[in-house]
Amino acid sequence: MSHARPDAPVVAVVGGGQLARMMAEPAAALGIPLRLLAEAPGVSAAQVIPDHVVGDYTDLATLEELVVGCRVVTFDHEHVPTDHLHALAASGTAVRPGPEALVHAQDKVVMREALSRIGAPLPGFRVVERVEEVVDFGFPCVLKTSRGGYDGKGVWFVSTPEECAPAFEAAGRTGVRLLVEELVPFRRELSALVARSPSGQAAAYPIVESVQREGICREVIAPAPDLDPDVAARAEALALRIARELDVTGVLAVELFETPDSVLVNELAMRPHNTGHWTQDGAVTSQFENHLRAVLDLPLGSPVARARWTVMVNILGGTGRLYDGYPHALARDPRLRVHLYGKEPRPGRKVGHVNAYGDDLEDCLERARHAAAWFAGELGNESE
Amino acid sequence: MSHARPDAPVVAVVGGGQLARMMAEPAAALGIPLRLLAEAPGVSAAQVIPDHVVGDYTDLATLEELVVGCRVVTFDHEHVPTDHLHALAASGTAVRPGPEALVHAQDKVVMREALSRIGAPLPGFRVVERVEEVVDFGFPCVLKTSRGGYDGKGVWFVSTPEECAPAFEAAGRTGVRLLVEELVPFRRELSALVARSPSGQAAAYPIVESVQREGICREVIAPAPDLDPDVAARAEALALRIARELDVTGVLAVELFETPDSVLVNELAMRPHNTGHWTQDGAVTSQFENHLRAVLDLPLGSPVARARWTVMVNILGGTGRLYDGYPHALARDPRLRVHLYGKEPRPGRKVGHVNAYGDDLEDCLERARHAAAWFAGELGNESE
Repeated sequence: MSHARPDAPVVAVVGGGQLARMMAEPAAALGIPLRLLAEAPGVSAAQVIPDHVVGDYTDLATLEELVVGCRVVTFDHEHVPTDHLHALAASGTAVRPGPEALVHAQDKVVMREALSRIGAPLPGFRVVERVEEVVDFGFPCVLKTSRGGYDGKGVWFVSTPEECAPAFEAAGRTGVRLLVEELVPFRRELSALVARSPSGQAAAYPIVESVQREGICREVIAPAPDLDPDVAARAEALALRIARELDVTGVLAVELFETPDSVLVNELAMRPHNTGHWTQDGAVTSQFENHLRAVLDLPLGSPVARARWTVMVNILGGTGRLYDGYPHALARDPRLRVHLYGKEPRPGRKVGHVNAYGDDLEDCLERARHAAAWFAGELGNESE
Repeated sequence: MSHARPDAPVVAVVGGGQLARMMAEPAAALGIPLRLLAEAPGVSAAQVIPDHVVGDYTDLATLEELVVGCRVVTFDHEHVPTDHLHALAASGTAVRPGPEALVHAQDKVVMREALSRIGAPLPGFRVVERVEEVVDFGFPCVLKTSRGGYDGKGVWFVSTPEECAPAFEAAGRTGVRLLVEELVPFRRELSALVARSPSGQAAAYPIVESVQREGICREVIAPAPDLDPDVAARAEALALRIARELDVTGVLAVELFETPDSVLVNELAMRPHNTGHWTQDGAVTSQFENHLRAVLDLPLGSPVARARWTVMVNILGGTGRLYDGYPHALARDPRLRVHLYGKEPRPGRKVGHVNAYGDDLEDCLERARHAAAWFAGELGNESE
């Protein structure tokens, strides 16, 4: 059931997670109707997008039905089979990002090889089929499955041949390739976020620092404190070049390692990204709005920061009843910006995030960390 | 069909216009489910709120069904019959604003008498039943029906006894009272916007200038340029006092006339208001978010402005296909913030608004006016 105005193009979104949910806010503001393919009834995005169907994104017929009458199809995640994307594109649907681009965010081997080809700075890597090849590569190192990893899953830090076994087993079990990578002695992790439209317009957000724990993004500081302006400029240019060379449409996040004198590419994501959630309250145009504008080939919005500092801290699961966190968190900090995803809290699950912006970084960090911990129930039994 | 998380309170919203639509954005961010009563399928808010029913807000049974399982009921407009609100409240529903407060936004005579009682500065007024009483009051003056007026309807500027006839006819036909008011020689119109929660917390937004044409709000400048700080402080205090004295919960807009040395109250609205749309992009917390926080008795967000100036200009109908306005408007101004309501353009109908913020007022005015005129199709056939 769609009551879209006649002249407004419908954007199909595959995947009902929080990224699709957060697209719904700027879509409502811009008067752009979304049609959602949700994995199950009541998932995060289905709670806020009326025009949704429940179905399986690995089923081509479901995807074909979804896109009828839509101007373009885009994604909450990278898991739609590449063949299906090619089939949709072949039958005339605008798929953004397109399958030729998206495969670089789906398959780490394809990504590494493509980035190597265009001369992007990378950690040393090699595709391995046997433990002996890892030994040749040299310990310590990192093993990664080419597909299926996220939030620290599909990644093994190894120092001995014995430690390699689980990685080879996982790759064999799921039929994917295994990659060995140099363990980079990085200073910190950075993220370069750009939006790019089919006609080639691109907007680059400020380079941010991303703090990961156990493979999960915990907090983001925008802009990255004390970042050498030359390194920042190079990182932005690199992300813009990758977007162009891989013909990315929509938002591209380039996760980077900062080395003593430059950056190396760690991962790519071709959708709004956790390291860009700060833009909702900290930039002139959020990554979610620019993703929609990009996939519709509309002129992009300014990616400039609105505040000296914006800090994003994720709310990770816990046992807390999230709503119960409001009376204290909002009273303590009237400037706090809260984003909850309508998800049932489970240990380690991302159920929301908070943004705090201002002129003083320490103050922003304290405010955002306190609020996130409070919502996660980590402070609930203490006196303050 | 509601898939609300167990601990999130559902807010029922009566009325499917753009105000309810714009509540949906912060509701999604805060993880607060809305349940909407829409006048018809596909109206503005029904396009973005999955949990909605179509029904008649003048039917008590429909309202009673709507609020089952909801924490509170609030409104997109002031037209729900007062008796129904009393009935809902009597059966245990939290109605916010409550019927005792809301009647002041429904009935201009009740409003004028209450404000007079609490000593708020007002234009001279009198309830009239015969033309002779208007003659006694003195020409020129303004006649207003006590109920049913909006956007310039139900208001007559009169200078002779003959000109009074249509007003008396309209009042007689609809069975409402008629009010005569002094024609105030005001400098300009201002608006004072506050949010107030049931526990009495209140937040006051900066006083803005509102530019009306033919009784319709055309543009808003935040803050009101060159406003005497004493007058601004008095206007804020007045709005806070009215909210407290009338026990308003949610957002209260007090429309004011600026006279040479002070302000007089023109109108009250107890819901998010057109003169507060600038807060979506220009304040730390939007009026829509603070309305939700207020009716849920959550701590209010900061009403402080984020930019030196924010200008809001309404997009009024025209014949334009709104979406066609994007390529030019967005390319011309990457900082422009657009809000469209999903409404079919009709002459004079509010179908959206734009916000422009920055350090230079003239620049903001030019950007916002150009964009609004462009979307309205007023510039579409000219070369620029």
